[in-house]
Amino acid sequence: MTEHTVRAFTEELEALSADIARMGGLAEQALTDAVTAIARRDASIAKTVIEGDIKIDDLQREIERKIMRLLALRQPMGRDLRQTVAALKLAADLERIGDLAKNVAKRALTIQEFDPIALTKSVERMGKLAAVQLKQVLDAFVTHELAGAIDVWKNDEELDEHYNSLFRELLTYMMEDPRMIGPGAHLLFVAKNIERIGDHCTNIAEVIHYLETGEDLGSDRPKAVETSASQIPSPPAMDTPK
Amino acid sequence: MTEHTVRAFTEELEALSADIARMGGLAEQALTDAVTAIARRDASIAKTVIEGDIKIDDLQREIERKIMRLLALRQPMGRDLRQTVAALKLAADLERIGDLAKNVAKRALTIQEFDPIALTKSVERMGKLAAVQLKQVLDAFVTHELAGAIDVWKNDEELDEHYNSLFRELLTYMMEDPRMIGPGAHLLFVAKNIERIGDHCTNIAEVIHYLETGEDLGSDRPKAVETSASQIPSPPAMDTPK
Repeated sequence: MTEHTVRAFTEELEALSADIARMGGLAEQALTDAVTAIARRDASIAKTVIEGDIKIDDLQREIERKIMRLLALRQPMGRDLRQTVAALKLAADLERIGDLAKNVAKRALTIQEFDPIALTKSVERMGKLAAVQLKQVLDAFVTHELAGAIDVWKNDEELDEHYNSLFRELLTYMMEDPRMIGPGAHLLFVAKNIERIGDHCTNIAEVIHYLETGEDLGSDRPKAVETSASQIPSPPAMDTPK
Repeated sequence: MTEHTVRAFTEELEALSADIARMGGLAEQALTDAVTAIARRDASIAKTVIEGDIKIDDLQREIERKIMRLLALRQPMGRDLRQTVAALKLAADLERIGDLAKNVAKRALTIQEFDPIALTKSVERMGKLAAVQLKQVLDAFVTHELAGAIDVWKNDEELDEHYNSLFRELLTYMMEDPRMIGPGAHLLFVAKNIERIGDHCTNIAEVIHYLETGEDLGSDRPKAVETSASQIPSPPAMDTPK
Protein backbone atom coordinates (compact mmCIF):
# COMPACT_ATOMS: atom_id res chain seq x y z
CA MET A 1 0.00 0.00 0.00
CA THR A 2 1.17 3.50 -0.75
CA GLU A 3 1.31 6.04 2.03
CA HIS A 4 -1.64 7.76 0.42
CA THR A 5 -3.72 4.57 0.48
CA VAL A 6 -2.85 3.93 4.11
CA ARG A 7 -3.88 7.44 5.06
CA ALA A 8 -7.14 7.18 3.13
CA PHE A 9 -7.85 3.86 4.83
CA THR A 10 -7.18 5.24 8.31
CA GLU A 11 -9.53 8.09 7.51
CA GLU A 12 -12.24 5.66 6.46
CA LEU A 13 -11.89 3.73 9.70
CA GLU A 14 -12.07 6.97 11.65
CA ALA A 15 -15.16 8.02 9.74
CA LEU A 16 -16.70 4.67 10.63
CA SER A 17 -15.97 5.22 14.33
CA ALA A 18 -17.47 8.69 14.09
CA ASP A 19 -20.63 7.20 12.54
CA ILE A 20 -20.87 4.69 15.40
CA ALA A 21 -20.43 7.48 17.94
CA ARG A 22 -23.13 9.50 16.20
CA MET A 23 -25.46 6.50 16.17
CA GLY A 24 -24.68 6.02 19.87
CA GLY A 25 -25.60 9.62 20.57
CA LEU A 26 -28.95 9.18 18.84
CA ALA A 27 -29.66 5.95 20.73
CA GLU A 28 -28.76 7.61 24.02
CA GLN A 29 -31.11 10.52 23.29
CA ALA A 30 -33.89 8.10 22.31
CA LEU A 31 -33.52 6.18 25.57
CA THR A 32 -33.47 9.31 27.75
CA ASP A 33 -36.50 10.75 25.94
CA ALA A 34 -38.42 7.48 26.07
CA VAL A 35 -37.92 7.29 29.84
CA THR A 36 -39.05 10.91 30.19
CA ALA A 37 -42.11 10.14 28.06
CA ILE A 38 -43.02 7.31 30.44
CA ALA A 39 -42.37 9.33 33.58
CA ARG A 40 -44.24 12.46 32.45
CA ARG A 41 -46.85 10.83 30.18
CA ASP A 42 -45.54 13.15 27.52
CA ALA A 43 -47.05 12.19 24.19
CA SER A 44 -45.08 14.71 22.17
CA ILE A 45 -41.71 13.46 23.44
CA ALA A 46 -42.89 9.89 22.82
CA LYS A 47 -43.76 10.76 19.23
CA THR A 48 -40.35 12.39 18.72
CA VAL A 49 -38.69 9.14 19.78
CA ILE A 50 -40.95 7.02 17.57
CA GLU A 51 -40.43 9.19 14.51
CA GLY A 52 -36.71 9.64 15.16
CA ASP A 53 -35.93 5.93 15.12
CA ILE A 54 -35.75 5.91 11.34
CA LYS A 55 -32.61 8.09 11.57
CA ILE A 56 -30.91 5.38 13.64
CA ASP A 57 -32.02 2.69 11.18
CA ASP A 58 -30.76 4.71 8.21
CA LEU A 59 -27.43 5.25 9.90
CA GLN A 60 -27.07 1.53 10.50
CA ARG A 61 -27.70 0.77 6.83
CA GLU A 62 -25.20 3.46 5.82
CA ILE A 63 -22.59 2.01 8.21
CA GLU A 64 -23.16 -1.49 6.82
CA ARG A 65 -22.71 -0.27 3.27
CA LYS A 66 -19.46 1.45 4.23
CA ILE A 67 -18.24 -1.70 5.94
CA MET A 68 -18.95 -3.89 2.93
CA ARG A 69 -17.10 -1.44 0.70
CA LEU A 70 -14.22 -1.28 3.14
CA LEU A 71 -13.94 -5.07 3.38
CA ALA A 72 -14.07 -5.44 -0.39
CA LEU A 73 -11.69 -2.66 -1.37
CA ARG A 74 -9.28 -2.42 1.55
CA GLN A 75 -9.17 -6.01 2.73
CA PRO A 76 -8.19 -4.98 6.26
CA MET A 77 -6.19 -7.26 8.56
CA GLY A 78 -5.29 -7.43 12.23
CA ARG A 79 -6.63 -4.59 14.34
CA ASP A 80 -8.13 -2.90 11.26
CA LEU A 81 -10.17 -6.01 10.54
CA ARG A 82 -11.27 -6.23 14.17
CA GLN A 83 -12.30 -2.60 14.05
CA THR A 84 -14.32 -3.14 10.89
CA VAL A 85 -16.17 -6.20 12.19
CA ALA A 86 -16.65 -4.51 15.58
CA ALA A 87 -18.36 -1.59 13.83
CA LEU A 88 -20.81 -4.03 12.24
CA LYS A 89 -21.70 -5.46 15.65
CA LEU A 90 -21.87 -2.13 17.43
CA ALA A 91 -24.21 -0.76 14.77
CA ALA A 92 -26.47 -3.80 15.24
CA ASP A 93 -26.57 -3.32 19.03
CA LEU A 94 -27.28 0.40 18.73
CA GLU A 95 -30.04 -0.23 16.20
CA ARG A 96 -31.69 -2.61 18.70
CA ILE A 97 -31.33 -0.08 21.52
CA GLY A 98 -33.07 2.48 19.31
CA ASP A 99 -35.79 -0.03 18.56
CA LEU A 100 -36.30 -0.88 22.23
CA ALA A 101 -36.45 2.83 23.10
CA LYS A 102 -39.05 3.30 20.37
CA ASN A 103 -41.09 0.47 21.86
CA VAL A 104 -40.88 2.10 25.30
CA ALA A 105 -42.10 5.36 23.76
CA LYS A 106 -45.03 3.58 22.10
CA ARG A 107 -46.05 2.15 25.44
CA ALA A 108 -45.80 5.63 26.96
CA LEU A 109 -48.59 6.61 24.56
CA THR A 110 -50.56 3.53 25.53
CA ILE A 111 -50.51 4.10 29.28
CA GLN A 112 -51.16 7.83 28.93
CA GLU A 113 -54.80 7.66 29.94
CA PHE A 114 -54.20 5.36 32.88
CA ASP A 115 -52.09 7.65 34.97
CA PRO A 116 -50.60 5.12 37.36
CA ILE A 117 -47.90 7.51 38.60
CA ALA A 118 -46.75 5.26 41.42
CA LEU A 119 -46.13 2.47 38.92
CA THR A 120 -43.76 4.48 36.79
CA LYS A 121 -41.46 5.91 39.48
CA SER A 122 -39.37 2.75 39.66
CA VAL A 123 -39.46 2.33 35.89
CA GLU A 124 -38.04 5.83 35.57
CA ARG A 125 -35.26 5.04 38.03
CA MET A 126 -34.38 1.89 36.14
CA GLY A 127 -34.41 3.77 32.84
CA LYS A 128 -32.01 6.36 34.18
CA LEU A 129 -29.67 3.63 35.35
CA ALA A 130 -29.69 2.12 31.85
CA ALA A 131 -29.02 5.54 30.32
CA VAL A 132 -25.94 5.89 32.56
CA GLN A 133 -24.73 2.46 31.41
CA LEU A 134 -25.21 3.39 27.78
CA LYS A 135 -23.44 6.74 28.18
CA GLN A 136 -20.52 5.10 29.96
CA VAL A 137 -20.03 2.37 27.37
CA LEU A 138 -20.21 4.87 24.51
CA ASP A 139 -17.59 7.01 26.27
CA ALA A 140 -15.40 3.91 26.59
CA PHE A 141 -15.76 3.33 22.85
CA VAL A 142 -14.74 6.89 21.97
CA THR A 143 -11.86 7.15 24.47
CA HIS A 144 -10.65 3.53 24.00
CA GLU A 145 -10.70 3.16 27.80
CA LEU A 146 -11.14 -0.46 28.63
CA ALA A 147 -11.82 0.13 32.33
CA GLY A 148 -15.08 1.95 31.56
CA ALA A 149 -16.28 -0.88 29.36
CA ILE A 150 -15.46 -3.47 32.02
CA ASP A 151 -17.36 -1.41 34.61
CA VAL A 152 -20.47 -1.40 32.43
CA TRP A 153 -20.14 -5.13 31.92
CA LYS A 154 -19.96 -5.72 35.67
CA ASN A 155 -22.71 -3.25 36.56
CA ASP A 156 -25.34 -4.92 34.42
CA GLU A 157 -26.14 -7.14 37.39
CA GLU A 158 -27.55 -4.11 39.18
CA LEU A 159 -29.94 -3.45 36.31
CA ASP A 160 -31.03 -7.09 36.37
CA GLU A 161 -31.77 -6.88 40.09
CA HIS A 162 -33.71 -3.68 39.49
CA TYR A 163 -35.75 -5.47 36.87
CA ASN A 164 -36.51 -8.38 39.18
CA SER A 165 -37.74 -6.16 41.98
CA LEU A 166 -39.75 -4.08 39.51
CA PHE A 167 -41.37 -7.23 38.16
CA ARG A 168 -42.55 -8.10 41.68
CA GLU A 169 -43.67 -4.55 42.37
CA LEU A 170 -45.72 -4.27 39.18
CA LEU A 171 -47.36 -7.64 39.80
CA THR A 172 -48.34 -6.51 43.29
CA TYR A 173 -50.02 -3.40 41.88
CA MET A 174 -51.83 -5.54 39.34
CA MET A 175 -53.07 -7.88 42.03
CA GLU A 176 -54.31 -5.07 44.23
CA ASP A 177 -56.31 -3.38 41.49
CA PRO A 178 -57.43 -5.13 38.30
CA ARG A 179 -57.63 -1.79 36.50
CA MET A 180 -53.84 -1.75 36.77
CA ILE A 181 -53.48 -5.02 34.85
CA GLY A 182 -53.52 -3.38 31.41
CA PRO A 183 -51.04 -0.59 32.07
CA GLY A 184 -49.09 -2.90 34.40
CA ALA A 185 -48.59 -5.39 31.57
CA HIS A 186 -47.28 -2.62 29.33
CA LEU A 187 -44.95 -1.44 32.09
CA LEU A 188 -43.65 -5.01 32.53
CA PHE A 189 -42.58 -4.83 28.89
CA VAL A 190 -41.12 -1.37 29.36
CA ALA A 191 -39.03 -2.71 32.25
CA LYS A 192 -38.02 -5.71 30.16
CA ASN A 193 -37.03 -3.46 27.27
CA ILE A 194 -34.85 -1.38 29.57
CA GLU A 195 -33.27 -4.54 30.92
CA ARG A 196 -32.59 -5.62 27.32
CA ILE A 197 -30.99 -2.25 26.61
CA GLY A 198 -28.67 -3.03 29.52
CA ASP A 199 -27.83 -6.36 27.88
CA HIS A 200 -26.94 -4.56 24.66
CA CYS A 201 -24.68 -2.25 26.67
CA THR A 202 -22.80 -5.31 27.95
CA ASN A 203 -22.62 -6.61 24.36
CA ILE A 204 -21.08 -3.29 23.35
CA ALA A 205 -18.63 -3.56 26.29
CA GLU A 206 -17.66 -7.03 25.07
CA VAL A 207 -17.10 -5.79 21.53
CA ILE A 208 -14.94 -2.91 22.82
CA HIS A 209 -12.90 -5.39 24.87
CA TYR A 210 -12.40 -7.60 21.85
CA LEU A 211 -11.56 -4.62 19.68
CA GLU A 212 -8.94 -3.26 22.08
CA THR A 213 -7.37 -6.54 23.18
CA GLY A 214 -8.25 -9.16 20.59
CA GLU A 215 -9.53 -11.31 23.45
CA ASP A 216 -13.06 -12.22 24.53
CA LEU A 217 -14.23 -10.74 27.81
CA GLY A 218 -15.42 -14.22 28.78
CA SER A 219 -18.90 -15.45 29.46
CA ASP A 220 -18.71 -15.48 33.25
CA ARG A 221 -20.41 -12.14 33.72
CA PRO A 222 -22.06 -11.97 37.15
CA LYS A 223 -25.80 -12.17 36.56
CA ALA A 224 -28.76 -11.81 38.86
CA VAL A 225 -30.90 -14.92 38.96
CA GLU A 226 -33.82 -14.69 36.54
CA THR A 227 -37.22 -13.83 37.97
CA SER A 228 -38.67 -17.19 38.92
CA ALA A 229 -41.79 -18.70 40.36
CA SER A 230 -40.62 -18.00 43.89
CA GLN A 231 -40.66 -14.34 42.99
CA ILE A 232 -44.30 -14.19 42.00
CA PRO A 233 -45.93 -12.39 44.90
CA SER A 234 -49.06 -14.01 46.29
CA PRO A 235 -52.24 -12.35 45.15
CA PRO A 236 -54.51 -10.91 47.80
CA ALA A 237 -57.34 -13.31 48.58
CA MET A 238 -59.85 -12.50 45.88
CA ASP A 239 -62.00 -15.58 45.97
CA THR A 240 -64.08 -14.10 48.70
CA PRO A 241 -65.47 -10.63 48.14
CA LYS A 242 -63.44 -7.91 49.80
CA MET B 1 -5.21 -17.43 -6.60
CA THR B 2 -4.16 -20.91 -7.56
CA GLU B 3 -6.83 -23.47 -8.35
CA HIS B 4 -5.93 -25.18 -5.09
CA THR B 5 -6.51 -21.99 -3.08
CA VAL B 6 -9.85 -21.38 -4.79
CA ARG B 7 -11.00 -24.91 -4.01
CA ALA B 8 -9.87 -24.62 -0.39
CA PHE B 9 -11.72 -21.33 -0.13
CA THR B 10 -14.93 -22.73 -1.59
CA GLU B 11 -14.69 -25.57 0.88
CA GLU B 12 -14.32 -23.15 3.76
CA LEU B 13 -17.40 -21.22 2.67
CA GLU B 14 -19.33 -24.47 2.36
CA ALA B 15 -18.19 -25.51 5.83
CA LEU B 16 -19.43 -22.16 7.12
CA SER B 17 -22.84 -22.73 5.54
CA ALA B 18 -22.95 -26.20 7.05
CA ASP B 19 -22.20 -24.71 10.49
CA ILE B 20 -25.04 -22.21 10.04
CA ALA B 21 -27.40 -25.00 9.02
CA ARG B 22 -26.33 -27.03 12.06
CA MET B 23 -26.86 -24.03 14.32
CA GLY B 24 -30.27 -23.55 12.70
CA GLY B 25 -31.16 -27.16 13.44
CA LEU B 26 -30.27 -26.70 17.11
CA ALA B 27 -32.27 -23.47 17.34
CA GLU B 28 -35.27 -25.15 15.69
CA GLN B 29 -35.10 -28.05 18.15
CA ALA B 30 -34.79 -25.63 21.08
CA LEU B 31 -37.89 -23.72 19.97
CA THR B 32 -39.99 -26.86 19.41
CA ASP B 33 -38.93 -28.30 22.76
CA ALA B 34 -39.52 -25.03 24.62
CA VAL B 35 -43.06 -24.84 23.25
CA THR B 36 -43.66 -28.47 24.25
CA ALA B 37 -42.31 -27.70 27.72
CA ILE B 38 -44.85 -24.88 28.05
CA ALA B 39 -47.74 -26.91 26.69
CA ARG B 40 -47.07 -30.04 28.76
CA ARG B 41 -45.50 -28.39 31.82
CA ASP B 42 -42.59 -30.72 31.17
CA ALA B 43 -39.70 -29.74 33.43
CA SER B 44 -37.27 -32.28 31.99
CA ILE B 45 -37.72 -31.02 28.41
CA ALA B 46 -37.40 -27.46 29.70
CA LYS B 47 -34.11 -28.31 31.39
CA THR B 48 -32.81 -29.93 28.20
CA VAL B 49 -33.46 -26.69 26.32
CA ILE B 50 -31.85 -24.57 29.05
CA GLU B 51 -28.74 -26.72 29.26
CA GLY B 52 -28.51 -27.18 25.49
CA ASP B 53 -28.30 -23.46 24.75
CA ILE B 54 -24.58 -23.44 25.45
CA LYS B 55 -24.07 -25.61 22.36
CA ILE B 56 -25.68 -22.91 20.21
CA ASP B 57 -23.56 -20.21 21.87
CA ASP B 58 -20.37 -22.22 21.33
CA LEU B 59 -21.23 -22.77 17.71
CA GLN B 60 -21.74 -19.04 17.22
CA ARG B 61 -18.32 -18.29 18.69
CA GLU B 62 -16.74 -20.95 16.48
CA ILE B 63 -18.45 -19.51 13.40
CA GLU B 64 -17.27 -16.01 14.28
CA ARG B 65 -13.69 -17.22 14.68
CA LYS B 66 -13.86 -18.94 11.29
CA ILE B 67 -15.24 -15.78 9.70
CA MET B 68 -12.49 -13.59 11.12
CA ARG B 69 -9.88 -16.02 9.83
CA LEU B 70 -11.57 -16.20 6.46
CA LEU B 71 -11.76 -12.41 6.12
CA ALA B 72 -8.12 -12.03 7.13
CA LEU B 73 -6.61 -14.81 5.04
CA ARG B 74 -8.89 -15.06 2.02
CA GLN B 75 -10.02 -11.46 1.66
CA PRO B 76 -13.21 -12.50 -0.15
CA MET B 77 -14.98 -10.23 -2.64
CA GLY B 78 -18.36 -10.05 -4.36
CA ARG B 79 -20.70 -12.90 -3.54
CA ASP B 80 -18.04 -14.59 -1.37
CA LEU B 81 -17.84 -11.48 0.78
CA ARG B 82 -21.63 -11.27 1.01
CA GLN B 83 -21.75 -14.91 2.03
CA THR B 84 -19.15 -14.36 4.74
CA VAL B 85 -20.84 -11.30 6.22
CA ALA B 86 -24.25 -12.99 5.91
CA ALA B 87 -22.95 -15.92 7.98
CA LEU B 88 -21.97 -13.48 10.72
CA LYS B 89 -25.49 -12.04 10.81
CA LEU B 90 -27.26 -15.38 10.55
CA ALA B 91 -25.22 -16.75 13.45
CA ALA B 92 -26.22 -13.71 15.53
CA ASP B 93 -29.93 -14.20 14.75
CA LEU B 94 -29.79 -17.92 15.50
CA GLU B 95 -27.99 -17.27 18.78
CA ARG B 96 -30.79 -14.90 19.79
CA ILE B 97 -33.45 -17.43 18.78
CA GLY B 98 -31.70 -20.00 20.99
CA ASP B 99 -31.62 -17.50 23.81
CA LEU B 100 -35.31 -16.67 23.45
CA ALA B 101 -36.19 -20.38 23.39
CA LYS B 102 -34.14 -20.85 26.56
CA ASN B 103 -36.06 -18.04 28.19
CA VAL B 104 -39.37 -19.66 27.19
CA ALA B 105 -38.14 -22.93 28.72
CA LYS B 106 -37.21 -21.14 31.96
CA ARG B 107 -40.70 -19.72 32.18
CA ALA B 108 -42.11 -23.19 31.59
CA LEU B 109 -40.42 -24.18 34.85
CA THR B 110 -41.84 -21.09 36.54
CA ILE B 111 -45.47 -21.69 35.62
CA GLN B 112 -45.28 -25.41 36.33
CA GLU B 113 -47.12 -25.25 39.63
CA PHE B 114 -49.85 -22.96 38.35
CA ASP B 115 -51.40 -25.23 35.80
CA PRO B 116 -53.36 -22.70 33.77
CA ILE B 117 -53.91 -25.11 30.87
CA ALA B 118 -56.40 -22.85 29.10
CA LEU B 119 -53.85 -20.07 29.07
CA THR B 120 -51.21 -22.06 27.29
CA LYS B 121 -53.28 -23.49 24.41
CA SER B 122 -52.98 -20.32 22.35
CA VAL B 123 -49.35 -19.91 23.32
CA GLU B 124 -48.67 -23.40 22.00
CA ARG B 125 -50.43 -22.60 18.73
CA MET B 126 -48.38 -19.45 18.33
CA GLY B 127 -45.17 -21.33 19.13
CA LYS B 128 -45.91 -23.92 16.47
CA LEU B 129 -46.50 -21.18 13.92
CA ALA B 130 -43.12 -19.67 14.76
CA ALA B 131 -41.46 -23.08 14.47
CA VAL B 132 -42.91 -23.44 10.95
CA GLN B 133 -41.53 -20.00 10.03
CA LEU B 134 -38.10 -20.93 11.37
CA LYS B 135 -38.06 -24.25 9.54
CA GLN B 136 -39.12 -22.63 6.29
CA VAL B 137 -36.51 -19.90 6.42
CA LEU B 138 -33.76 -22.39 7.27
CA ASP B 139 -34.85 -24.52 4.31
CA ALA B 140 -34.65 -21.44 2.10
CA PHE B 141 -31.10 -20.85 3.32
CA VAL B 142 -30.01 -24.40 2.54
CA THR B 143 -31.77 -24.66 -0.83
CA HIS B 144 -31.02 -21.03 -1.88
CA GLU B 145 -34.72 -20.66 -2.73
CA LEU B 146 -35.62 -17.03 -2.50
CA ALA B 147 -39.39 -17.64 -2.70
CA GLY B 148 -39.41 -19.46 0.64
CA ALA B 149 -37.55 -16.64 2.32
CA ILE B 150 -39.95 -14.04 0.91
CA ASP B 151 -42.92 -16.12 2.14
CA VAL B 152 -41.51 -16.12 5.67
CA TRP B 153 -40.95 -12.41 5.47
CA LYS B 154 -44.56 -11.82 4.42
CA ASN B 155 -46.07 -14.28 6.89
CA ASP B 156 -44.59 -12.62 9.94
CA GLU B 157 -47.68 -10.40 10.04
CA GLU B 158 -49.75 -13.43 10.98
CA LEU B 159 -47.52 -14.10 13.97
CA ASP B 160 -47.82 -10.46 15.03
CA GLU B 161 -51.62 -10.68 14.86
CA HIS B 162 -51.48 -13.87 16.88
CA TYR B 163 -49.42 -12.10 19.48
CA ASN B 164 -51.85 -9.17 19.68
CA SER B 165 -54.86 -11.40 20.24
CA LEU B 166 -52.93 -13.49 22.75
CA PHE B 167 -52.00 -10.34 24.65
CA ARG B 168 -55.70 -9.46 24.97
CA GLU B 169 -56.63 -13.01 25.90
CA LEU B 170 -54.01 -13.28 28.64
CA LEU B 171 -55.00 -9.93 30.09
CA THR B 172 -58.61 -11.06 30.22
CA TYR B 173 -57.64 -14.18 32.19
CA MET B 174 -55.58 -12.04 34.53
CA MET B 175 -58.50 -9.69 35.14
CA GLU B 176 -60.92 -12.51 35.81
CA ASP B 177 -58.74 -14.19 38.40
CA PRO B 178 -55.89 -12.43 40.22
CA ARG B 179 -54.18 -15.76 40.83
CA MET B 180 -53.56 -15.83 37.09
CA ILE B 181 -51.64 -12.54 37.19
CA GLY B 182 -48.28 -14.17 38.05
CA PRO B 183 -48.35 -16.99 35.48
CA GLY B 184 -50.15 -14.69 33.03
CA ALA B 185 -47.29 -12.17 33.22
CA HIS B 186 -44.80 -14.96 32.46
CA LEU B 187 -46.93 -16.12 29.55
CA LEU B 188 -47.05 -12.56 28.19
CA PHE B 189 -43.27 -12.74 28.01
CA VAL B 190 -43.38 -16.20 26.46
CA ALA B 191 -45.70 -14.86 23.76
CA LYS B 192 -43.43 -11.84 23.27
CA ASN B 193 -40.38 -14.09 22.99
CA ILE B 194 -42.11 -16.17 20.33
CA GLU B 195 -43.07 -13.01 18.47
CA ARG B 196 -39.40 -11.93 18.67
CA ILE B 197 -38.32 -15.29 17.26
CA GLY B 198 -40.62 -14.51 14.33
CA ASP B 199 -38.83 -11.18 13.90
CA HIS B 200 -35.49 -12.97 13.78
CA CYS B 201 -36.91 -15.29 11.10
CA THR B 202 -37.72 -12.22 8.99
CA ASN B 203 -34.19 -10.91 9.65
CA ILE B 204 -32.85 -14.22 8.38
CA ALA B 205 -35.13 -13.96 5.33
CA GLU B 206 -33.74 -10.49 4.65
CA VAL B 207 -30.14 -11.73 4.95
CA ILE B 208 -30.89 -14.60 2.54
CA HIS B 209 -32.41 -12.13 0.08
CA TYR B 210 -29.35 -9.90 0.31
CA LEU B 211 -27.05 -12.88 -0.01
CA GLU B 212 -28.75 -14.25 -3.11
CA THR B 213 -29.47 -10.97 -4.89
CA GLY B 214 -27.14 -8.36 -3.41
CA GLU B 215 -30.23 -6.20 -2.84
CA ASP B 216 -32.10 -5.29 0.34
CA LEU B 217 -35.57 -6.75 0.70
CA GLY B 218 -36.75 -3.27 1.70
CA SER B 219 -38.28 -2.08 4.90
CA ASP B 220 -41.90 -2.04 3.81
CA ARG B 221 -42.75 -5.40 5.34
CA PRO B 222 -46.47 -5.58 6.16
CA LYS B 223 -46.73 -5.40 9.92
CA ALA B 224 -49.68 -5.76 12.25
CA VAL B 225 -50.28 -2.66 14.33
CA GLU B 226 -48.65 -2.91 17.75
CA THR B 227 -50.86 -3.78 20.70
CA SER B 228 -52.12 -0.41 21.87
CA ALA B 229 -54.23 1.10 24.58
CA SER B 230 -57.40 0.45 22.63
CA GLN B 231 -56.58 -3.24 22.84
CA ILE B 232 -56.41 -3.40 26.60
CA PRO B 233 -59.61 -5.21 27.52
CA SER B 234 -61.65 -3.59 30.24
CA PRO B 235 -61.29 -5.30 33.59
CA PRO B 236 -64.40 -6.71 35.20
CA ALA B 237 -65.82 -4.27 37.72
CA MET B 238 -63.84 -5.12 40.83
CA ASP B 239 -64.49 -2.05 42.93
CA THR B 240 -67.71 -3.50 44.20
CA PRO B 241 -67.55 -6.99 45.65
CA LYS B 242 -68.72 -9.67 43.24
